[in-house]
Amino acid sequence: MQIKIIIAGPRGKMGSEAVRMVNNEDTFDLVACIDRKNGGKALKDIESLPALDIPIYEDPEQCFQETDADVFIDLTTPDVGFEHTKLSLLYDIRPVVGTSGFTQEQIEALADLSTTHGTGCLIAPNFAIGAVLMMQFAKTAAKYLPDVEIIEKHHDQKLDAPSGTAVKTANMIQETRQSKQQGHPDEKETLNGARGAETDGIHIHSLRLPGLIAHQEVLFGGPGQTLTVKHDSYNRASFMEGVKLSVNKVMESDKLIYGLENILE
Amino acid sequence: MQIKIIIAGPRGKMGSEAVRMVNNEDTFDLVACIDRKNGGKALKDIESLPALDIPIYEDPEQCFQETDADVFIDLTTPDVGFEHTKLSLLYDIRPVVGTSGFTQEQIEALADLSTTHGTGCLIAPNFAIGAVLMMQFAKTAAKYLPDVEIIEKHHDQKLDAPSGTAVKTANMIQETRQSKQQGHPDEKETLNGARGAETDGIHIHSLRLPGLIAHQEVLFGGPGQTLTVKHDSYNRASFMEGVKLSVNKVMESDKLIYGLENILE
Amino acid sequence: MQIKIIIAGPRGKMGSEAVRMVNNEDTFDLVACIDRKNGGKALKDIESLPALDIPIYEDPEQCFQETDADVFIDLTTPDVGFEHTKLSLLYDIRPVVGTSGFTQEQIEALADLSTTHGTGCLIAPNFAIGAVLMMQFAKTAAKYLPDVEIIEKHHDQKLDAPSGTAVKTANMIQETRQSKQQGHPDEKETLNGARGAETDGIHIHSLRLPGLIAHQEVLFGGPGQTLTVKHDSYNRASFMEGVKLSVNKVMESDKLIYGLENILE
Amino acid sequence: MQIKIIIAGPRGKMGSEAVRMVNNEDTFDLVACIDRKNGGKALKDIESLPALDIPIYEDPEQCFQETDADVFIDLTTPDVGFEHTKLSLLYDIRPVVGTSGFTQEQIEALADLSTTHGTGCLIAPNFAIGAVLMMQFAKTAAKYLPDVEIIEKHHDQKLDAPSGTAVKTANMIQETRQSKQQGHPDEKETLNGARGAETDGIHIHSLRLPGLIAHQEVLFGGPGQTLTVKHDSYNRASFMEGVKLSVNKVMESDKLIYGLENILE
Repeated sequence: MQIKIIIAGPRGKMGSEAVRMVNNEDTFDLVACIDRKNGGKALKDIESLPALDIPIYEDPEQCFQETDADVFIDLTTPDVGFEHTKLSLLYDIRPVVGTSGFTQEQIEALADLSTTHGTGCLIAPNFAIGAVLMMQFAKTAAKYLPDVEIIEKHHDQKLDAPSGTAVKTANMIQETRQSKQQGHPDEKETLNGARGAETDGIHIHSLRLPGLIAHQEVLFGGPGQTLTVKHDSYNRASFMEGVKLSVNKVMESDKLIYGLENILE
Repeated sequence: MQIKIIIAGPRGKMGSEAVRMVNNEDTFDLVACIDRKNGGKALKDIESLPALDIPIYEDPEQCFQETDADVFIDLTTPDVGFEHTKLSLLYDIRPVVGTSGFTQEQIEALADLSTTHGTGCLIAPNFAIGAVLMMQFAKTAAKYLPDVEIIEKHHDQKLDAPSGTAVKTANMIQETRQSKQQGHPDEKETLNGARGAETDGIHIHSLRLPGLIAHQEVLFGGPGQTLTVKHDSYNRASFMEGVKLSVNKVMESDKLIYGLENILE
Repeated sequence: MQIKIIIAGPRGKMGSEAVRMVNNEDTFDLVACIDRKNGGKALKDIESLPALDIPIYEDPEQCFQETDADVFIDLTTPDVGFEHTKLSLLYDIRPVVGTSGFTQEQIEALADLSTTHGTGCLIAPNFAIGAVLMMQFAKTAAKYLPDVEIIEKHHDQKLDAPSGTAVKTANMIQETRQSKQQGHPDEKETLNGARGAETDGIHIHSLRLPGLIAHQEVLFGGPGQTLTVKHDSYNRASFMEGVKLSVNKVMESDKLIYGLENILE
Repeated sequence: MQIKIIIAGPRGKMGSEAVRMVNNEDTFDLVACIDRKNGGKALKDIESLPALDIPIYEDPEQCFQETDADVFIDLTTPDVGFEHTKLSLLYDIRPVVGTSGFTQEQIEALADLSTTHGTGCLIAPNFAIGAVLMMQFAKTAAKYLPDVEIIEKHHDQKLDAPSGTAVKTANMIQETRQSKQQGHPDEKETLNGARGAETDGIHIHSLRLPGLIAHQEVLFGGPGQTLTVKHDSYNRASFMEGVKLSVNKVMESDKLIYGLENILE
């Protein structure tokens, strides 16, 4: 069986990767796109996208009405994406949405709609399946090896330290271990900052160097052993495995799922 | 509540670590040891062991009869250990056994005995909790990122390549992914062996260098990303976290559990 | 002082990176390009290149005659590059050539020409300065820690294993250590290929996974310690540091230098 | 030719390793030991040391007078070691001293004595040859890839952060690169300490976990590439390669050498 798919945001960085992924996947079928700037054209009319004869709609409602689709992938902005997702659920087309930008109220509204219609809906703040697995494994390992530190490495154009993923990982670890003071109780920094940032006893170290892309290691230590979980992300293609899995899983769901971790078994 | 523990094999490498661990743990209470060569003595009479006034029995049956114990830790050999474990179950003292040497028949016999008596029993081929977590994580990751290779590194006194852990990891990965040919279909070795050993499409690479102890990495690759799970084992202390967890978990069980992975949640 | 530079092959993958690098460098001045297909045009007429008003010559001799330049960077093919390099030396413009494709006779002919004219000339089979440093460090370390293994990791579109860099590294290591049998004399492979490829006792392990780009580790082991030198190459920009250094160094030379390692101090 | 060796401090951690190493080395010959507490005994009288019939002297001067030796290895304390080293030079026995505790005046006094007598003398603050190579390589790499960060990892019993080796590495790097502000000029820490300690623009990150021993990585980044030099030290045996090299090199010297890096070629 083919899964028929609509994509919103085909010109964006994630969207254009998704167009290519869906087009290359044997069991997926790209049936339409939504793009507010290119209504009435076809994908092949847009430079930099594959030369496909896929219709582009300006109006999402018209698209959902006229197109026989199973899944709707939204890779636009939170504001636009929220409206799209609501409409999609109304037309019983299962949404797969990549955003961390929805409010708690918006998520609850979509969950209600999803349940009422019995139409699966998947919202993922992070489609990088390797990063999600890393965080899940870290959460599990911390039960048995509660001493843990995080190293994250990024290119030197990144402004904030630590990274959002590092903070999220620390938070997830906190769900399964007791907050504990790590290191020697009398340890001292002879150079300020040497032991990194600390959140609930977990130390986080942020490296910034040209050449680096996006890398994170979570190190666990216990007597006589260390365990490391590491993720290296090289480019946007890394998100597509997660989108692919989401499309397949949303087909089997009849309610809203938030976070890729909840479709990993 | 204190867990009262008997240890068999207190002079061995693992056994002496276990004596120290049980002695240091607040909720554990070492009540007796079994040692065929030192019946009638106390632990403090044996050089290299902690100076504890713990009785040593030559005869296991006498020990189980006379000692009020909750758990029996066996760190002897498979032959002796099997007899010990049977006896221990008969006396309703929960066995925790570290061995990969029991036959399928022996395991089944012990499982029957354990169920009949409603007495928990835990047999672990590997107590290194970090290694067991690494294998579990590898098994999970392979569902989503089926391209995987294994690197294992050991000191150059090790005779066999690949290591037992590497082969076991590959087998566990095979349970969750389809056997697949990895690498380019037309790849060729210009130097024989460059692509390592292969089992069901998984490549295994064994390094042997002085200085190394026992290390393994499992690498998963997908478009734009890699995920790595790595375990470094530095000394025998690494097994004690697993023994400790096993003692606590066997207290809550009323049947036989084989493998540390089955008490990880 | 500005160094005035001509580039041959501006449309190629390396050439276009070089155009951008020279254009961005404060002390470099791009004065002309050589491109057999675009004679008479300017760089700005070629899509995908920076919009610069730099003249393009079809005929290299005319270019060298009419252009007041200090350095000539050739990033074409070995055949074309050899003719370009000879001509450039005749006109006393210092060549910087990126190729491993010149024959021994060609290199000697260019060396003679370079010495006769007192005009520096630099030929580099590999401009990735990090890779060249890794090989130099490996060569030095092997004097003191002669037990060594190499791991190289590449994307799974690569056909040959091991990589050329891994073999070159092994050869360089052999210059400073005695050939030795590593590992235990009685070691045996229970799965064929586990211990990797072997050249003069050095074991090489080649991994191929989607997601990987180009990575190499050289591991040295001695009693109680290991030393690792590792290079990760993410994209073609990695070659530009080497080109930049070569341009600066060829200005100070009056003869032919082969290999980036000979301009590292 | 055999090199005849005296060792001071045979009962210490480093000293006892040295006794074993000298005893196992074919070209070395242990002829006497100096130990203030065991004068008149032999090595075999001291438990925990090899059962060798080697005389122990309480008085260093008597030892140097009565023993025909080539090299004197001092592994005592800075105070005692300084007196030993002076005496050893007076008797033309070449000292190899493992200490970072001599003052500048003491070193100069010993250098004068060494030159006057034409007797080689080697003082090494660090005998771990892998660590010294790591620092040397870092110093060289920083010339070409000036963006660098240091990660050091130690067991959680270590009190100070960063480690002495990390600070020394940063200082050595500063000898070959200009002090520079690394990372994005506008980078900011959302959690204090995330970017680590900083010395002359070099960021240092200190991890402390049970299980870890002593590990350091120096990471260099440039456009499109990273280069890493890493040292893992597992136990005291790691120092013996450096002691061995020092004994051989001090035989060829007629003056004082400070630091293992100055006998690496």
